[in-house]
Amino acid sequence: MCQLLGMNGNTPTDIVFSFTGFATRAVEHKDGFGIAFFEGPGVRCFVDHHSANDSPVAEMVRRYPIRSRHVISHIRKATQGGVALQNTHPFVRELWGRYWVFAHNGDLKDFHPKLHAAFHPVGDTDSERAFCWLLQELAKNHASVPSVRDLTETLRELAPPVARHGSFNFLLSNGDALWAHGATRLHWLVRQHPFRHARLQDQDLTVNFAEHTTPNDRVAVIVTEPLTADEDWQAFAPGELRVFQDGQPLDA
Amino acid sequence: MCQLLGMNGNTPTDIVFSFTGFATRAVEHKDGFGIAFFEGPGVRCFVDHHSANDSPVAEMVRRYPIRSRHVISHIRKATQGGVALQNTHPFVRELWGRYWVFAHNGDLKDFHPKLHAAFHPVGDTDSERAFCWLLQELAKNHASVPSVRDLTETLRELAPPVARHGSFNFLLSNGDALWAHGATRLHWLVRQHPFRHARLQDQDLTVNFAEHTTPNDRVAVIVTEPLTADEDWQAFAPGELRVFQDGQPLDA
Repeated sequence: MCQLLGMNGNTPTDIVFSFTGFATRAVEHKDGFGIAFFEGPGVRCFVDHHSANDSPVAEMVRRYPIRSRHVISHIRKATQGGVALQNTHPFVRELWGRYWVFAHNGDLKDFHPKLHAAFHPVGDTDSERAFCWLLQELAKNHASVPSVRDLTETLRELAPPVARHGSFNFLLSNGDALWAHGATRLHWLVRQHPFRHARLQDQDLTVNFAEHTTPNDRVAVIVTEPLTADEDWQAFAPGELRVFQDGQPLDA
Repeated sequence: MCQLLGMNGNTPTDIVFSFTGFATRAVEHKDGFGIAFFEGPGVRCFVDHHSANDSPVAEMVRRYPIRSRHVISHIRKATQGGVALQNTHPFVRELWGRYWVFAHNGDLKDFHPKLHAAFHPVGDTDSERAFCWLLQELAKNHASVPSVRDLTETLRELAPPVARHGSFNFLLSNGDALWAHGATRLHWLVRQHPFRHARLQDQDLTVNFAEHTTPNDRVAVIVTEPLTADEDWQAFAPGELRVFQDGQPLDA
Protein backbone atom coordinates (compact mmCIF):
# COMPACT_ATOMS: atom_id res chain seq x y z
CA MET A 1 0.00 0.00 0.00
CA CYS A 2 1.04 3.54 -0.62
CA GLN A 3 0.25 7.00 0.64
CA LEU A 4 -1.15 10.02 -1.13
CA LEU A 5 -0.76 13.73 -0.53
CA GLY A 6 -2.62 16.40 -2.47
CA MET A 7 -2.81 20.16 -2.17
CA ASN A 8 -5.14 22.64 -3.80
CA GLY A 9 -4.81 26.35 -3.13
CA ASN A 10 -6.39 29.62 -4.18
CA THR A 11 -2.90 31.07 -4.52
CA PRO A 12 0.43 29.41 -5.39
CA THR A 13 1.59 27.80 -2.17
CA ASP A 14 4.66 25.82 -1.27
CA ILE A 15 4.21 22.34 0.09
CA VAL A 16 7.52 22.08 1.96
CA PHE A 17 5.96 21.68 5.43
CA SER A 18 3.44 19.01 4.45
CA PHE A 19 5.88 17.18 2.18
CA THR A 20 8.46 17.08 4.96
CA GLY A 21 6.05 15.24 7.21
CA PHE A 22 4.80 13.06 4.41
CA ALA A 23 8.30 12.05 3.27
CA THR A 24 9.07 10.79 6.79
CA ARG A 25 6.57 8.01 6.16
CA ALA A 26 8.76 6.80 3.33
CA VAL A 27 10.78 4.66 5.75
CA GLU A 28 7.98 2.17 5.42
CA HIS A 29 6.94 3.19 1.89
CA LYS A 30 10.36 2.86 0.40
CA ASP A 31 9.75 1.80 -3.21
CA GLY A 32 9.82 5.19 -4.85
CA PHE A 33 8.13 8.52 -4.57
CA GLY A 34 6.86 11.19 -6.88
CA ILE A 35 5.49 14.69 -6.74
CA ALA A 36 3.86 16.75 -9.47
CA PHE A 37 3.36 20.52 -9.39
CA PHE A 38 1.10 22.42 -11.75
CA GLU A 39 2.22 25.90 -12.69
CA GLY A 40 -0.54 27.21 -14.90
CA PRO A 41 -1.21 24.42 -17.39
CA GLY A 42 2.45 23.31 -17.16
CA VAL A 43 3.54 20.43 -14.92
CA ARG A 44 6.74 19.41 -13.26
CA CYS A 45 6.77 15.84 -12.11
CA PHE A 46 9.73 14.68 -10.03
CA VAL A 47 9.95 10.93 -9.54
CA ASP A 48 12.56 8.65 -8.06
CA HIS A 49 12.56 4.95 -7.41
CA HIS A 50 14.47 5.62 -4.23
CA SER A 51 12.65 6.31 -0.98
CA ALA A 52 11.52 9.90 -0.39
CA ASN A 53 13.51 9.64 2.82
CA ASP A 54 16.93 9.45 1.15
CA SER A 55 16.34 10.47 -2.47
CA PRO A 56 18.38 13.47 -3.70
CA VAL A 57 15.31 14.42 -5.72
CA ALA A 58 13.15 14.53 -2.58
CA GLU A 59 15.88 16.50 -0.84
CA MET A 60 15.71 19.09 -3.62
CA VAL A 61 11.91 19.27 -3.29
CA ARG A 62 12.28 19.89 0.46
CA ARG A 63 14.77 22.72 -0.14
CA TYR A 64 13.33 24.40 -3.21
CA PRO A 65 9.95 25.93 -2.34
CA ILE A 66 8.11 25.47 -5.64
CA ARG A 67 4.86 27.40 -5.41
CA SER A 68 1.89 25.74 -7.02
CA ARG A 69 -1.90 25.73 -6.78
CA HIS A 70 -2.22 21.99 -7.44
CA VAL A 71 0.20 19.39 -6.09
CA ILE A 72 -0.08 15.61 -6.09
CA SER A 73 2.46 13.41 -4.33
CA HIS A 74 2.77 9.70 -3.70
CA ILE A 75 5.08 7.42 -1.75
CA ARG A 76 5.06 3.85 -2.84
CA LYS A 77 5.24 0.44 -1.30
CA ALA A 78 5.09 -1.90 -4.27
CA THR A 79 2.12 -4.27 -4.35
CA GLN A 80 1.53 -4.75 -8.08
CA GLY A 81 4.34 -3.96 -10.53
CA GLY A 82 8.07 -4.02 -9.80
CA VAL A 83 10.16 -1.20 -8.35
CA ALA A 84 10.89 0.74 -11.52
CA LEU A 85 10.59 4.28 -12.73
CA GLN A 86 7.71 3.49 -15.08
CA ASN A 87 5.69 2.21 -12.09
CA THR A 88 6.26 5.30 -9.98
CA HIS A 89 3.30 7.64 -9.37
CA PRO A 90 2.13 10.25 -10.20
CA PHE A 91 1.45 9.46 -13.84
CA VAL A 92 1.08 12.25 -16.38
CA ARG A 93 -0.81 12.21 -19.68
CA GLU A 94 -2.18 14.83 -22.04
CA LEU A 95 -5.86 15.04 -23.02
CA TRP A 96 -7.62 17.94 -24.83
CA GLY A 97 -4.38 19.95 -24.74
CA ARG A 98 -4.18 19.74 -20.93
CA TYR A 99 -1.91 17.69 -18.72
CA TRP A 100 -3.57 15.29 -16.28
CA VAL A 101 -1.82 14.00 -13.18
CA PHE A 102 -2.96 10.90 -11.30
CA ALA A 103 -1.84 8.98 -8.22
CA HIS A 104 -3.51 5.98 -6.62
CA ASN A 105 -3.41 4.26 -3.27
CA GLY A 106 -4.91 0.81 -3.10
CA ASP A 107 -4.98 -2.47 -4.86
CA LEU A 108 -7.22 -3.37 -7.80
CA LYS A 109 -7.73 -7.08 -8.40
CA ASP A 110 -8.38 -8.51 -11.86
CA PHE A 111 -8.68 -5.07 -13.36
CA HIS A 112 -7.88 -5.40 -17.05
CA PRO A 113 -10.14 -2.96 -18.89
CA LYS A 114 -10.19 -2.77 -22.66
CA LEU A 115 -7.81 0.02 -23.63
CA HIS A 116 -8.65 0.56 -27.28
CA ALA A 117 -7.99 4.29 -27.60
CA ALA A 118 -5.09 6.67 -27.15
CA PHE A 119 -3.97 5.80 -23.62
CA HIS A 120 -1.82 2.78 -22.84
CA PRO A 121 0.19 1.99 -19.74
CA VAL A 122 3.99 2.07 -20.00
CA GLY A 123 4.52 0.18 -16.74
CA ASP A 124 2.66 -2.76 -15.26
CA THR A 125 0.65 -1.35 -12.35
CA ASP A 126 -3.10 -1.59 -11.81
CA SER A 127 -2.93 2.15 -11.06
CA GLU A 128 -1.64 3.24 -14.47
CA ARG A 129 -4.21 0.96 -16.11
CA ALA A 130 -6.96 2.68 -14.13
CA PHE A 131 -5.65 6.11 -15.10
CA CYS A 132 -5.52 5.19 -18.80
CA TRP A 133 -9.04 3.83 -18.62
CA LEU A 134 -10.36 6.96 -16.87
CA LEU A 135 -8.83 9.21 -19.56
CA GLN A 136 -10.13 6.99 -22.34
CA GLU A 137 -13.65 7.21 -20.92
CA LEU A 138 -13.41 10.96 -20.24
CA ALA A 139 -12.40 11.43 -23.89
CA LYS A 140 -15.45 9.43 -24.97
CA ASN A 141 -17.79 11.50 -22.80
CA HIS A 142 -16.54 14.97 -23.75
CA ALA A 143 -15.26 16.32 -27.08
CA SER A 144 -13.15 19.01 -25.45
CA VAL A 145 -12.26 20.06 -21.92
CA PRO A 146 -15.59 20.39 -20.07
CA SER A 147 -16.42 22.43 -16.99
CA VAL A 148 -15.19 21.25 -13.61
CA ARG A 149 -18.79 20.44 -12.68
CA ASP A 150 -19.33 18.29 -15.80
CA LEU A 151 -16.01 16.53 -15.26
CA THR A 152 -16.99 15.80 -11.69
CA GLU A 153 -20.27 14.26 -12.81
CA THR A 154 -18.52 12.03 -15.32
CA LEU A 155 -15.93 10.97 -12.75
CA ARG A 156 -18.73 10.06 -10.34
CA GLU A 157 -19.96 7.61 -12.98
CA LEU A 158 -16.52 6.25 -13.86
CA ALA A 159 -15.08 5.65 -10.38
CA PRO A 160 -17.51 3.00 -9.06
CA PRO A 161 -16.88 0.32 -11.74
CA VAL A 162 -13.15 0.59 -11.02
CA ALA A 163 -13.68 0.67 -7.25
CA ARG A 164 -15.46 -2.67 -7.43
CA HIS A 165 -12.07 -4.26 -8.15
CA GLY A 166 -10.54 -3.27 -4.83
CA SER A 167 -9.56 -0.07 -3.06
CA PHE A 168 -9.46 2.98 -5.24
CA ASN A 169 -8.23 6.03 -3.32
CA PHE A 170 -6.99 8.45 -5.95
CA LEU A 171 -6.01 12.05 -6.64
CA LEU A 172 -6.43 13.61 -10.08
CA SER A 173 -5.78 17.12 -11.34
CA ASN A 174 -5.68 18.97 -14.65
CA GLY A 175 -4.46 22.26 -13.18
CA ASP A 176 -8.01 23.63 -12.92
CA ALA A 177 -9.22 21.56 -10.00
CA LEU A 178 -8.20 18.58 -7.90
CA TRP A 179 -10.41 15.53 -7.58
CA ALA A 180 -10.06 13.10 -4.68
CA HIS A 181 -11.79 9.75 -4.41
CA GLY A 182 -11.88 7.95 -1.10
CA ALA A 183 -12.18 4.22 -0.62
CA THR A 184 -10.46 2.95 2.48
CA ARG A 185 -8.31 5.78 3.86
CA LEU A 186 -8.31 9.42 2.81
CA HIS A 187 -8.58 12.63 4.84
CA TRP A 188 -8.85 16.30 4.07
CA LEU A 189 -8.93 19.74 5.65
CA VAL A 190 -8.91 23.38 4.64
CA ARG A 191 -6.36 25.79 6.07
CA GLN A 192 -7.57 29.39 6.01
CA HIS A 193 -7.73 32.59 8.01
CA PRO A 194 -7.31 32.75 10.98
CA PHE A 195 -4.20 30.59 10.52
CA ARG A 196 -2.80 28.74 13.51
CA HIS A 197 0.16 26.64 14.53
CA ALA A 198 0.31 23.04 13.36
CA ARG A 199 2.56 20.26 14.58
CA LEU A 200 3.65 17.45 12.27
CA GLN A 201 2.60 14.08 13.55
CA ASP A 202 5.70 12.33 12.19
CA GLN A 203 8.38 14.86 13.10
CA ASP A 204 9.07 17.22 15.93
CA LEU A 205 8.31 20.20 13.70
CA THR A 206 5.82 23.00 14.19
CA VAL A 207 4.87 25.71 11.76
CA ASN A 208 2.92 28.89 12.36
CA PHE A 209 0.99 29.26 9.12
CA ALA A 210 0.07 32.84 10.07
CA GLU A 211 3.69 33.82 9.45
CA HIS A 212 3.69 32.40 5.95
CA THR A 213 0.29 33.43 4.65
CA THR A 214 -1.95 36.39 3.96
CA PRO A 215 -5.53 36.49 5.31
CA ASN A 216 -6.82 35.74 1.80
CA ASP A 217 -4.88 32.48 1.37
CA ARG A 218 -6.76 29.23 1.47
CA VAL A 219 -5.47 25.74 0.87
CA ALA A 220 -7.04 22.31 0.96
CA VAL A 221 -4.83 19.36 1.90
CA ILE A 222 -5.83 15.78 1.14
CA VAL A 223 -3.80 12.94 2.57
CA THR A 224 -4.04 9.24 3.34
CA GLU A 225 -3.48 9.66 7.08
CA PRO A 226 -3.66 13.02 8.92
CA LEU A 227 -0.33 14.85 8.81
CA THR A 228 -0.76 16.94 11.93
CA ALA A 229 -1.88 16.17 15.45
CA ASP A 230 -3.74 19.40 16.17
CA GLU A 231 -5.93 20.10 13.14
CA ASP A 232 -9.43 18.89 12.26
CA TRP A 233 -9.00 16.29 9.57
CA GLN A 234 -12.15 14.85 8.02
CA ALA A 235 -12.33 11.33 6.67
CA PHE A 236 -13.70 10.54 3.21
CA ALA A 237 -16.62 8.13 3.20
CA PRO A 238 -16.04 4.99 1.12
CA GLY A 239 -16.81 5.85 -2.51
CA GLU A 240 -16.90 9.59 -1.87
CA LEU A 241 -15.58 11.82 -4.66
CA ARG A 242 -14.75 15.42 -3.80
CA VAL A 243 -13.54 18.17 -6.08
CA PHE A 244 -11.37 20.98 -4.72
CA GLN A 245 -10.96 24.35 -6.38
CA ASP A 246 -9.45 27.58 -5.05
CA GLY A 247 -8.53 25.84 -1.82
CA GLN A 248 -11.94 24.51 -0.84
CA PRO A 249 -14.30 21.64 -1.68
CA LEU A 250 -17.00 22.46 -4.22
CA ASP A 251 -20.55 21.37 -3.56
CA ALA A 252 -21.42 19.25 -6.55
CA MET B 1 17.30 30.02 -30.50
CA CYS B 2 18.05 27.22 -28.14
CA GLN B 3 20.59 24.49 -27.71
CA LEU B 4 20.20 20.73 -27.67
CA LEU B 5 22.17 17.97 -25.97
CA GLY B 6 21.53 14.28 -26.48
CA MET B 7 23.27 11.17 -25.27
CA ASN B 8 22.85 7.55 -26.29
CA GLY B 9 24.91 4.83 -24.67
CA ASN B 10 25.30 1.08 -24.77
CA THR B 11 25.35 1.09 -20.98
CA PRO B 12 23.74 3.44 -18.44
CA THR B 13 26.03 6.46 -18.33
CA ASP B 14 25.93 9.66 -16.34
CA ILE B 15 25.84 12.92 -18.23
CA VAL B 16 27.28 15.14 -15.47
CA PHE B 17 30.40 16.17 -17.44
CA SER B 18 28.60 17.06 -20.66
CA PHE B 19 25.66 18.70 -18.86
CA THR B 20 28.04 20.85 -16.82
CA GLY B 21 29.54 22.30 -19.99
CA PHE B 22 26.17 22.58 -21.65
CA ALA B 23 24.55 24.38 -18.69
CA THR B 24 27.26 27.05 -18.84
CA ARG B 25 25.73 28.18 -22.12
CA ALA B 26 22.54 28.99 -20.26
CA VAL B 27 23.85 32.47 -19.46
CA GLU B 28 22.73 33.36 -22.95
CA HIS B 29 19.93 30.77 -23.14
CA LYS B 30 18.24 31.82 -19.95
CA ASP B 31 14.55 31.11 -20.53
CA GLY B 32 14.34 27.67 -19.03
CA PHE B 33 15.98 24.30 -19.33
CA GLY B 34 14.95 20.70 -19.25
CA ILE B 35 16.52 17.26 -19.20
CA ALA B 36 14.89 13.87 -19.63
CA PHE B 37 16.45 10.54 -18.67
CA PHE B 38 15.14 7.18 -19.78
CA GLU B 39 15.56 4.33 -17.34
CA GLY B 40 14.19 1.32 -19.16
CA PRO B 41 10.84 2.47 -20.54
CA GLY B 42 10.44 4.91 -17.64
CA VAL B 43 11.33 8.59 -17.95
CA ARG B 44 12.28 11.33 -15.57
CA CYS B 45 11.96 14.77 -17.00
CA PHE B 46 13.28 17.70 -14.95
CA VAL B 47 12.25 21.11 -16.22
CA ASP B 48 12.61 24.61 -14.83
CA HIS B 49 11.76 27.97 -16.31
CA HIS B 50 14.85 29.35 -14.63
CA SER B 51 18.19 29.30 -16.39
CA ALA B 52 20.20 26.07 -16.15
CA ASN B 53 22.95 28.25 -14.76
CA ASP B 54 21.17 29.11 -11.49
CA SER B 55 18.25 26.66 -11.26
CA PRO B 56 18.17 24.47 -8.13
CA VAL B 57 16.85 21.71 -10.38
CA ALA B 58 19.89 21.96 -12.67
CA GLU B 59 22.11 22.04 -9.59
CA MET B 60 20.58 18.73 -8.46
CA VAL B 61 21.14 17.23 -11.93
CA ARG B 62 24.82 18.25 -11.80
CA ARG B 63 25.24 16.63 -8.36
CA TYR B 64 23.14 13.49 -8.72
CA PRO B 65 24.71 11.21 -11.33
CA ILE B 66 21.59 9.65 -12.84
CA ARG B 67 22.71 6.84 -15.12
CA SER B 68 20.76 6.48 -18.31
CA ARG B 69 21.16 5.10 -21.82
CA HIS B 70 19.10 7.86 -23.46
CA VAL B 71 19.21 11.50 -22.36
CA ILE B 72 17.75 14.57 -24.04
CA SER B 73 18.38 18.08 -22.72
CA HIS B 74 17.52 21.56 -23.91
CA ILE B 75 18.30 25.11 -22.86
CA ARG B 76 15.91 27.71 -24.11
CA LYS B 77 16.01 31.22 -25.37
CA ALA B 78 12.38 32.01 -26.09
CA THR B 79 11.54 32.81 -29.72
CA GLN B 80 7.94 31.58 -30.04
CA GLY B 81 5.84 31.09 -26.91
CA GLY B 82 6.32 32.86 -23.57
CA VAL B 83 8.63 31.85 -20.73
CA ALA B 84 6.43 29.30 -18.98
CA LEU B 85 6.70 25.75 -17.79
CA GLN B 86 4.37 24.40 -20.50
CA ASN B 87 6.72 25.81 -23.15
CA THR B 88 9.84 24.23 -21.68
CA HIS B 89 11.46 21.35 -23.57
CA PRO B 90 11.78 18.39 -23.59
CA PHE B 91 8.14 17.43 -24.12
CA VAL B 92 6.92 13.97 -23.13
CA ARG B 93 3.98 12.03 -24.55
CA GLU B 94 2.90 8.39 -24.57
CA LEU B 95 2.27 6.41 -27.77
CA TRP B 96 1.83 2.62 -28.09
CA GLY B 97 2.53 2.23 -24.36
CA ARG B 98 5.94 3.91 -24.66
CA TYR B 99 7.05 7.35 -23.58
CA TRP B 100 8.43 9.64 -26.28
CA VAL B 101 10.69 12.57 -25.50
CA PHE B 102 11.27 15.45 -27.92
CA ALA B 103 13.30 18.66 -27.94
CA HIS B 104 13.71 21.13 -30.77
CA ASN B 105 16.11 23.89 -31.68
CA GLY B 106 15.01 26.26 -34.38
CA ASP B 107 12.12 28.34 -35.51
CA LEU B 108 9.18 27.11 -37.60
CA LYS B 109 7.23 29.81 -39.40
CA ASP B 110 3.52 29.46 -40.19
CA PHE B 111 3.48 25.89 -38.97
CA HIS B 112 -0.10 25.07 -37.97
CA PRO B 113 -0.70 21.45 -38.94
CA LYS B 114 -4.09 19.84 -38.51
CA LEU B 115 -4.05 18.05 -35.16
CA HIS B 116 -7.13 15.87 -35.33
CA ALA B 117 -6.04 12.87 -33.30
CA ALA B 118 -4.83 12.17 -29.76
CA PHE B 119 -1.97 14.68 -29.43
CA HIS B 120 -2.55 18.35 -28.68
CA PRO B 121 -0.11 20.98 -27.47
CA VAL B 122 -0.51 22.29 -23.92
CA GLY B 123 1.73 25.32 -24.49
CA ASP B 124 2.03 27.61 -27.48
CA THR B 125 5.36 26.76 -29.11
CA ASP B 126 5.96 25.70 -32.70
CA SER B 127 8.11 22.91 -31.20
CA GLU B 128 5.32 21.21 -29.25
CA ARG B 129 3.04 21.49 -32.31
CA ALA B 130 5.70 19.74 -34.40
CA PHE B 131 6.06 16.98 -31.77
CA CYS B 132 2.30 16.42 -31.60
CA TRP B 133 2.11 16.25 -35.39
CA LEU B 134 5.01 13.77 -35.59
CA LEU B 135 3.33 11.47 -33.06
CA GLN B 136 -0.04 11.76 -34.79
CA GLU B 137 1.56 10.76 -38.10
CA LEU B 138 3.63 7.96 -36.54
CA ALA B 139 0.40 6.59 -35.04
CA LYS B 140 -1.22 6.67 -38.50
CA ASN B 141 1.70 4.84 -40.08
CA HIS B 142 2.11 2.03 -37.54
CA ALA B 143 -0.47 0.15 -35.49
CA SER B 144 1.97 -0.66 -32.69
CA VAL B 145 5.56 0.11 -31.86
CA PRO B 146 7.56 -0.76 -35.01
CA SER B 147 11.23 -1.64 -35.34
CA VAL B 148 13.82 1.11 -35.02
CA ARG B 149 14.54 0.74 -38.73
CA ASP B 150 10.87 1.17 -39.71
CA LEU B 151 10.51 4.16 -37.38
CA THR B 152 13.54 5.74 -38.94
CA GLU B 153 12.10 5.32 -42.42
CA THR B 154 8.83 6.94 -41.37
CA LEU B 155 10.64 9.82 -39.65
CA ARG B 156 12.66 10.39 -42.85
CA GLU B 157 9.33 10.97 -44.62
CA LEU B 158 7.82 13.12 -41.87
CA ALA B 159 10.71 15.50 -41.14
CA PRO B 160 11.03 17.28 -44.53
CA PRO B 161 7.50 18.76 -44.68
CA VAL B 162 8.07 20.27 -41.21
CA ALA B 163 11.59 21.41 -42.07
CA ARG B 164 10.23 23.46 -44.96
CA HIS B 165 8.77 25.84 -42.36
CA GLY B 166 12.14 26.86 -40.93
CA SER B 167 14.96 25.24 -39.01
CA PHE B 168 14.13 21.87 -37.52
CA ASN B 169 17.01 20.51 -35.46
CA PHE B 170 15.47 17.96 -33.13
CA LEU B 171 16.18 15.06 -30.79
CA LEU B 172 13.64 12.28 -30.22
CA SER B 173 13.80 9.11 -28.15
CA ASN B 174 11.49 6.34 -27.00
CA GLY B 175 14.05 4.61 -24.79
CA ASP B 176 15.01 2.17 -27.59
CA ALA B 177 16.96 4.54 -29.80
CA LEU B 178 17.66 8.23 -30.19
CA TRP B 179 16.89 10.07 -33.42
CA ALA B 180 18.60 13.33 -34.32
CA HIS B 181 17.63 15.57 -37.21
CA GLY B 182 20.01 18.31 -38.31
CA ALA B 183 19.00 21.50 -40.05
CA THR B 184 21.27 24.41 -39.27
CA ARG B 185 23.52 23.40 -36.39
CA LEU B 186 23.96 19.95 -34.89
CA HIS B 187 27.10 17.91 -34.17
CA TRP B 188 27.84 14.42 -32.93
CA LEU B 189 30.62 12.10 -31.89
CA VAL B 190 31.12 8.65 -30.40
CA ARG B 191 33.24 8.17 -27.29
CA GLN B 192 34.65 4.65 -27.06
CA HIS B 193 37.74 2.65 -26.21
CA PRO B 194 40.52 3.82 -26.08
CA PHE B 195 39.08 6.67 -24.00
CA ARG B 196 41.03 9.89 -23.73
CA HIS B 197 41.00 13.19 -21.91
CA ALA B 198 38.53 15.82 -23.00
CA ARG B 199 38.47 19.50 -22.11
CA LEU B 200 35.18 21.41 -21.91
CA GLN B 201 35.11 24.35 -24.29
CA ASP B 202 33.01 26.50 -21.95
CA GLN B 203 34.70 25.76 -18.63
CA ASP B 204 38.19 25.11 -17.42
CA LEU B 205 37.34 21.47 -16.75
CA THR B 206 39.01 18.32 -18.05
CA VAL B 207 37.87 14.75 -17.61
CA ASN B 208 39.75 11.55 -18.27
CA PHE B 209 37.00 9.26 -19.55
CA ALA B 210 39.33 6.27 -19.17
CA GLU B 211 38.98 6.62 -15.39
CA HIS B 212 35.18 6.48 -15.53
CA THR B 213 34.57 3.79 -18.13
CA THR B 214 35.21 0.18 -19.02
CA PRO B 215 36.66 -0.78 -22.42
CA ASN B 216 33.22 -1.97 -23.50
CA ASP B 217 31.45 1.35 -22.90
CA ARG B 218 30.38 3.38 -25.87
CA VAL B 219 28.39 6.57 -25.93
CA ALA B 220 27.22 8.90 -28.70
CA VAL B 221 26.82 12.58 -27.86
CA ILE B 222 24.76 14.91 -30.05
CA VAL B 223 24.88 18.65 -29.39
CA THR B 224 24.15 21.95 -31.10
CA GLU B 225 27.74 23.24 -30.84
CA PRO B 226 30.74 21.02 -29.93
CA LEU B 227 31.17 20.74 -26.15
CA THR B 228 34.87 20.00 -26.11
CA ALA B 229 37.87 21.55 -27.84
CA ASP B 230 39.88 18.38 -28.39
CA GLU B 231 37.48 15.79 -29.79
CA ASP B 232 36.41 15.12 -33.38
CA TRP B 233 32.88 16.45 -33.70
CA GLN B 234 31.08 15.85 -36.95
CA ALA B 235 28.47 18.23 -38.31
CA PHE B 236 25.05 17.05 -39.49
CA ALA B 237 24.27 17.94 -43.08
CA PRO B 238 21.09 20.02 -43.50
CA GLY B 239 18.15 17.63 -43.52
CA GLU B 240 20.19 14.69 -42.24
CA LEU B 241 18.42 12.26 -39.89
CA ARG B 242 20.55 9.88 -37.87
CA VAL B 243 19.47 7.19 -35.46
CA PHE B 244 21.70 6.17 -32.56
CA GLN B 245 21.47 2.88 -30.73
CA ASP B 246 23.86 1.26 -28.27
CA GLY B 247 26.09 4.32 -28.42
CA GLN B 248 26.65 4.46 -32.17
CA PRO B 249 24.89 5.63 -35.33
CA LEU B 250 23.03 2.93 -37.22
CA ASP B 251 23.39 2.69 -40.97
CA ALA B 252 19.87 3.00 -42.23
